[in-house]
Amino acid sequence: MSEPRDYYLPVILGTPRKGRYSTYAANLVAEELGKRPRVTTEVIDVLHHPVPHDDAGEAVKSPAFAEKMARADGLVIVCPEYNHGYPGALKSLLDTCLKEYIHKPAGVVGVSAGPWGGVRAIQSLLPVLREFGLVSLFWDVNFSQVQNVFDEAGALKDPAWRRRTGKFLNELLWMAETLRHGREHVTLTE
Amino acid sequence: MSEPRDYYLPVILGTPRKGRYSTYAANLVAEELGKRPRVTTEVIDVLHHPVPHDDAGEAVKSPAFAEKMARADGLVIVCPEYNHGYPGALKSLLDTCLKEYIHKPAGVVGVSAGPWGGVRAIQSLLPVLREFGLVSLFWDVNFSQVQNVFDEAGALKDPAWRRRTGKFLNELLWMAETLRHGREHVTLTE
Amino acid sequence: MSEPRDYYLPVILGTPRKGRYSTYAANLVAEELGKRPRVTTEVIDVLHHPVPHDDAGEAVKSPAFAEKMARADGLVIVCPEYNHGYPGALKSLLDTCLKEYIHKPAGVVGVSAGPWGGVRAIQSLLPVLREFGLVSLFWDVNFSQVQNVFDEAGALKDPAWRRRTGKFLNELLWMAETLRHGREHVTLTE
Amino acid sequence: MSEPRDYYLPVILGTPRKGRYSTYAANLVAEELGKRPRVTTEVIDVLHHPVPHDDAGEAVKSPAFAEKMARADGLVIVCPEYNHGYPGALKSLLDTCLKEYIHKPAGVVGVSAGPWGGVRAIQSLLPVLREFGLVSLFWDVNFSQVQNVFDEAGALKDPAWRRRTGKFLNELLWMAETLRHGREHVTLTE
Repeated sequence: MSEPRDYYLPVILGTPRKGRYSTYAANLVAEELGKRPRVTTEVIDVLHHPVPHDDAGEAVKSPAFAEKMARADGLVIVCPEYNHGYPGALKSLLDTCLKEYIHKPAGVVGVSAGPWGGVRAIQSLLPVLREFGLVSLFWDVNFSQVQNVFDEAGALKDPAWRRRTGKFLNELLWMAETLRHGREHVTLTE
Repeated sequence: MSEPRDYYLPVILGTPRKGRYSTYAANLVAEELGKRPRVTTEVIDVLHHPVPHDDAGEAVKSPAFAEKMARADGLVIVCPEYNHGYPGALKSLLDTCLKEYIHKPAGVVGVSAGPWGGVRAIQSLLPVLREFGLVSLFWDVNFSQVQNVFDEAGALKDPAWRRRTGKFLNELLWMAETLRHGREHVTLTE
Repeated sequence: MSEPRDYYLPVILGTPRKGRYSTYAANLVAEELGKRPRVTTEVIDVLHHPVPHDDAGEAVKSPAFAEKMARADGLVIVCPEYNHGYPGALKSLLDTCLKEYIHKPAGVVGVSAGPWGGVRAIQSLLPVLREFGLVSLFWDVNFSQVQNVFDEAGALKDPAWRRRTGKFLNELLWMAETLRHGREHVTLTE
Repeated sequence: MSEPRDYYLPVILGTPRKGRYSTYAANLVAEELGKRPRVTTEVIDVLHHPVPHDDAGEAVKSPAFAEKMARADGLVIVCPEYNHGYPGALKSLLDTCLKEYIHKPAGVVGVSAGPWGGVRAIQSLLPVLREFGLVSLFWDVNFSQVQNVFDEAGALKDPAWRRRTGKFLNELLWMAETLRHGREHVTLTE
């Protein structure tokens, strides 16, 4: 084997809602990811990548966002649940890319003010991620009643969340390495 | 029975994408709705109700849109399928209201450039509509390969689509009248 | 108005799994339903309506089950979540009817051994219920960690569940009365 | 690299319905798979693996089916769409295994008598496959109006379906090889 290489695994913060606790969830995941050897990460905030109001899809691709997606070895998507679905801002941003995503893993962090951990938003997102060619992890992190998980300054109240997040990231790293092997070394007949 | 009353049944055009054929689908439905006695309709275009980039949900409710939703006796939602889900712009707009929707019917018109009639976007939308308290019709209109349904000026190529749309609108009108009876005359124990 | 009429609102117990706690959930709902004036109910157990192994769909309609569905003014479906979907036995039984369901309300009770209240099974069931012409209630009852809700003999540990179930049943009764008015008095143009 | 090894990629025929055209779809896929070098396949028919009527889940695991799933390097699931969901018999059988599926690819072949290619059944199946640890391919094969694809003896009318099926199988083989590399050579931190 050649020497170990770096993995770029950004975290998409999927809502611009004022007062969003999802920021804290994204920061926590990025912090834990950053502790892993050979992993580079950053939080990509939908707030900083607005899609124009008067168009949609690849026509409004932002070079900055697309470059990050093309470079990524995998993604974490922090997705709060709004009315049993995903936020519009997240979907609009994801829809600006397509080939950039193929054969890369995506893990989803569900966030909810209520008791169900954002799992309904995750269910709705699965077919979208699949169409992008992303491979959904079969582990999630689910922040139910997120206002009880973090304090108002964003500090985690119960450190057990780091361990739970860690198991999810183990799976992300396994899949990122596995799929990069596939992209680089396994021939796809066409 | 008292004398017949009017029904306000607007059509939401669910994408701002440039070159959208969904406009033609929305216009067709509004035209057919407008032929029905006692029905008032209009096309509500997401392009004209942009949600601010930096927030989401009821906090960014537009009085104009909310007033229409409160007044509506039912909705038609024209929803193109983007990457096996609904457009972000549509979700962001719908998320600005909540109580305005309760116990009203919603019919969905799926639009797709490909062969599957937008049915995957409709599947994803069902739980969202339910959370709003909207009652999803069990009829859809599905425009597959929509670029073959309308010409570039928006004219319908095959008049059979009017008949198909009509069956869907029959169901919408039945459910609109039924649910209005419920809202006005059936007591909900609380 | 004519004099009050009875409503037949059966509860479908959606799993034959040995040791199922869903029985207790179904019994609780039937018990609460039975306290309502003018409501007749019973638990319909998938265990007692097995679908033949070698066929599927309306071809294997059981007259006993179909008669109950035709007579029902609405349904409650107790649906445990198995691997993020609905039980096969429930789907096989529901698939034996079609026209019997049209324009009637269905409320779903999610049951889960884990923390998410069966909401993922409910999400998957929504499009199926819609295709049947059933109107899904926008209230659910969600029994998370159901083994902590009932003791081993099926007794409810916390009486607050009766109140929560009651709100769901209020909605079911409202929709049952509303849709029966529609079926009997609102003309559907065809 | 060591010498090439065989891949066992069975095809699950997901309905026992009498008169099922899905048999022909399963046979076609198995036939095309069998032409690939180093691939062993077979059709696993839900009809021959009935799940007992009076139980569900891993408690009723069939050793024969579980052994095949444990040995498989990936799966094809032929899934007709019944009432916008998957067949109960398919779900009941899949639910009897769990660890046998982890980190293996699954491709789904949708079958429909109507125009939508079974895509709604596939949407519903995605979260289930994910929970099993299966990786859903982002290619499908969709047999719409399947009664026009095969004649009554099961012969394919239009050979173009072999080419379409081939592209799907290319992806399956790529993912099977990639994920087997991961299972055998990439360390999962736990």
